[in-house]
Amino acid sequence: MIGIVAKLKVKPGSEAAFEAAFQELAAAVRKNEPGCKLYDLFRKAGEAGTYYVQEQYTDKASADAHMKSDHFRAAGAKLAPTLAAAPEIVNLEKVG
Amino acid sequence: MIGIVAKLKVKPGSEAAFEAAFQELAAAVRKNEPGCKLYDLFRKAGEAGTYYVQEQYTDKASADAHMKSDHFRAAGAKLAPTLAAAPEIVNLEKVG
Repeated sequence: MIGIVAKLKVKPGSEAAFEAAFQELAAAVRKNEPGCKLYDLFRKAGEAGTYYVQEQYTDKASADAHMKSDHFRAAGAKLAPTLAAAPEIVNLEKVG
Repeated sequence: MIGIVAKLKVKPGSEAAFEAAFQELAAAVRKNEPGCKLYDLFRKAGEAGTYYVQEQYTDKASADAHMKSDHFRAAGAKLAPTLAAAPEIVNLEKVG
């Protein structure tokens, strides 16, 4: 299993637009990506505008397919204007 | 839902001991904590000795109970000597 932890910083005032666009993406991921086993968005407690995503994919091919999917690219166009900085992505490999 | 992303740095040469102790803890968590919905250990790709944990709990009470559990305290005693630094814990609140 492949894991990803992504950290996203959102511009002040863009939180609602970011969350709406991200949840639309998450719904498309769950509907269209059988290899994606976890795709959950979180707010950092006590730090407005900072978000984390916990992701899990059955294998690298599924993780790569996610990044290349039409719904991911379409969401990127909506999300980009809400972000204060480039996302920080940590690539992981499950133990056991 | 409450989320946690934990980053752990392990001393060179202690990776196997760390992984064994952590997986023993994870088994106890899954067996004894119905409020814990995710407790998965990952290696950071391309960076030996750096680990991440993705955690989810149904509510704050369940997350607090995890930290106070006997199995968590017992595991801490085994894990502490394998760590190169204090764990970095990010507390999260699920969106939606």
